[in-house]
Amino acid sequence: MTPSVRAVDVILAKRRGDAHDRDTLEGFIGGYVRGEVPDYQVAAWLMAVVWRGMTERETADLTEVMADSGERLDLAEFAHPVDKHSTGGVGDKTTLVLAPLLAALGASVAKMSGRGLGHTGGTIDKLEAIPGFRAELDREAFFRQVREIGVAVTGQTRALAPADGLLYALRDATGTVASLPLIASSIMSKKLAGGARTIVLDVKVGHGAFMRTPDEARALAASMVAIGHHAGRTVRAVLSNMDEPLGTAVGHALEVREALATLRGAGPPDLRELVLTLAGELLEAAGLVTGRGEVEAALDDGRALERFERWVAAQGGDVARLDDLEVATETADWCADASGYLTSIDAQKVGAAVSHLGGGRRQKGDVLDLGVGAVMRAKVGDAVRAGEPLVTLHHRDGRGLEAAWATLAGAASIGERGERRPLVLEVVR
Amino acid sequence: MTPSVRAVDVILAKRRGDAHDRDTLEGFIGGYVRGEVPDYQVAAWLMAVVWRGMTERETADLTEVMADSGERLDLAEFAHPVDKHSTGGVGDKTTLVLAPLLAALGASVAKMSGRGLGHTGGTIDKLEAIPGFRAELDREAFFRQVREIGVAVTGQTRALAPADGLLYALRDATGTVASLPLIASSIMSKKLAGGARTIVLDVKVGHGAFMRTPDEARALAASMVAIGHHAGRTVRAVLSNMDEPLGTAVGHALEVREALATLRGAGPPDLRELVLTLAGELLEAAGLVTGRGEVEAALDDGRALERFERWVAAQGGDVARLDDLEVATETADWCADASGYLTSIDAQKVGAAVSHLGGGRRQKGDVLDLGVGAVMRAKVGDAVRAGEPLVTLHHRDGRGLEAAWATLAGAASIGERGERRPLVLEVVR
Repeated sequence: MTPSVRAVDVILAKRRGDAHDRDTLEGFIGGYVRGEVPDYQVAAWLMAVVWRGMTERETADLTEVMADSGERLDLAEFAHPVDKHSTGGVGDKTTLVLAPLLAALGASVAKMSGRGLGHTGGTIDKLEAIPGFRAELDREAFFRQVREIGVAVTGQTRALAPADGLLYALRDATGTVASLPLIASSIMSKKLAGGARTIVLDVKVGHGAFMRTPDEARALAASMVAIGHHAGRTVRAVLSNMDEPLGTAVGHALEVREALATLRGAGPPDLRELVLTLAGELLEAAGLVTGRGEVEAALDDGRALERFERWVAAQGGDVARLDDLEVATETADWCADASGYLTSIDAQKVGAAVSHLGGGRRQKGDVLDLGVGAVMRAKVGDAVRAGEPLVTLHHRDGRGLEAAWATLAGAASIGERGERRPLVLEVVR
Repeated sequence: MTPSVRAVDVILAKRRGDAHDRDTLEGFIGGYVRGEVPDYQVAAWLMAVVWRGMTERETADLTEVMADSGERLDLAEFAHPVDKHSTGGVGDKTTLVLAPLLAALGASVAKMSGRGLGHTGGTIDKLEAIPGFRAELDREAFFRQVREIGVAVTGQTRALAPADGLLYALRDATGTVASLPLIASSIMSKKLAGGARTIVLDVKVGHGAFMRTPDEARALAASMVAIGHHAGRTVRAVLSNMDEPLGTAVGHALEVREALATLRGAGPPDLRELVLTLAGELLEAAGLVTGRGEVEAALDDGRALERFERWVAAQGGDVARLDDLEVATETADWCADASGYLTSIDAQKVGAAVSHLGGGRRQKGDVLDLGVGAVMRAKVGDAVRAGEPLVTLHHRDGRGLEAAWATLAGAASIGERGERRPLVLEVVR
């Protein structure tokens, strides 16, 4: 921070509702990362941002400043570096199907992915359900793999956008998580630092999602698309329904199994639909396909499956054991208490139930049980009968089962009419 | 903080605009003082308070919680314990005249007073311009003096309302100083802890004051009167004009000299008017007088002067040297650049000029020169002529004089019509 711009003046400017210029944001946020601006000043500023908001230009500048706070991945050697981000869903194994599909159609997927926390699982954790899979690649192996097979996924390093990690922890402790510019810049700072030129965002809407209404989700999507535009990237955002878990499987090994089934043409329709939509938008934006038909073909004719197997093998996974993943064999059913049609099933509660069984982290560093989980026995719109199973839990000796039952209480709504809602609500370009 | 109320939930509640109950405030602010709630959480909460405000009840509860954070002075042995607070003016030597006047009329003035910082002086510093005066009394001597002569003034101890000191420092660093409930609770917490039953507040309005408009000042006054009501105290607030320094003298020794002149019946009219108004309101509220005439008599017949001399002597001051205080003898005049009538003179700039000469602290611990200062040669409404002095500065060998000139530039406005504004704008009861 230059001596002429004091941290307290930055706070006072935001308190008044002024927009900061990029130098000011660099001084303030850069100063925070360097330890020159104390957390209490940033905390007051965060609340002022929640109150006053940020302009589109300002949000884009904040995002660049956060992306500049650490290393930026240089993907210039690849013709079509792409990336995808989801705002966090339950049963969301999309990346496992999407990444090899994108690679099969000529895109380069050099993806940093997170581990799960709370009720949502992480892609990296799911991949580790495959025996031998190495989720942490060094930089050289990571790039070599992208060059050779077009896809590599590794754990998120602290080196990318460290400002985001610091700010997120502070926001979590200060009641400033929910803020459109802060959410948008947090997500996009990591995407910009990740180096992809074309990015598709899966913005979840509903019970199990951070955005509860389509309006909120649309505003977030528009903000992130605008940030991409300011940064010279092409960004599209798909708003997708999260009023029930995606597909039928929740839990690491169960989700890998379902992703594999989808790559073989036997997956649940909603998962397939989401994969095709995200891939279509991304590849069209990247200029690699001209219509959804080309994407569908690559999924149906086995090219995506073949790429998936090469990917798994490249990261040490035992492809021969893909049909033999370890899943908890003891099961218990959670049943409908009325007859009618399933109108919603709270994805967040299902995710939390699986977490209780050992399939989720309460805090960083918790060891996961990758074999526990839940299988949806009915999807929204299905006819159900009282006493028949809605969800089958896979557990270990009943561990966490009581808590799972308590969490699931009231999670399902059963009504008199069956109605399926569209999975994809809209696309923001 | 009880385990059931997490600090982040307190912040989120204020972010939503909810009012806290007293237990919540006790847990949060009490937790901060005990070191259990970190400053970054309090900082975010402060900005949320700036944003959402506080109800009257909530502000009163916050004030009590702050007053409860340390010792409370027990003045129950006195029949009429009174106190006065000023929101901070330039040239404000009111306490030096008011305190002995109140004592002369039967009130007990057991007053904790602050030292000056920035452009406003502190009563304690002013009293130290009297040779031998001891501004720091131990508890026993303090109470004995109030019993014997009805008045004692000592430095503010950290023991009273320590939450206020902590919160004020944090507000100063986080752009959250300007907030009605935070200002009102800060002032009143120290007054409540100070133990007086009847309190008069001098709320300054104008250039040299924290409150720039009568509306702001009225709102602050009403909030503080309401806090007093909730706490079972009688509080009245006088809104007084600070569009020019009070009286003619600014600077420690110069101000003592002017206070003494006022006690002898030869002081400036505005200072006399303010003293009589504050004393009248306070003593009437305490039931000690029924009209202003009784107050005026005690000032005019020498009873207040006699009490002042006993007070100075009781705290070690050399009464024989009161007419011989050390004042810087070198002077320099700041002159009018046009002829006409003085319409305003920025009190804050005059205070800052004296500070440059060595008469103010830039930070705690700075040693003051009690002999430097400024004398107003014209008051608002007076006719002035170009080239004739408006302010005479008393300096030491020109030290700080350049900075003082620079600060004074533009401080005076000269117009075509002379108009005196009333000093006392209104009284809030």
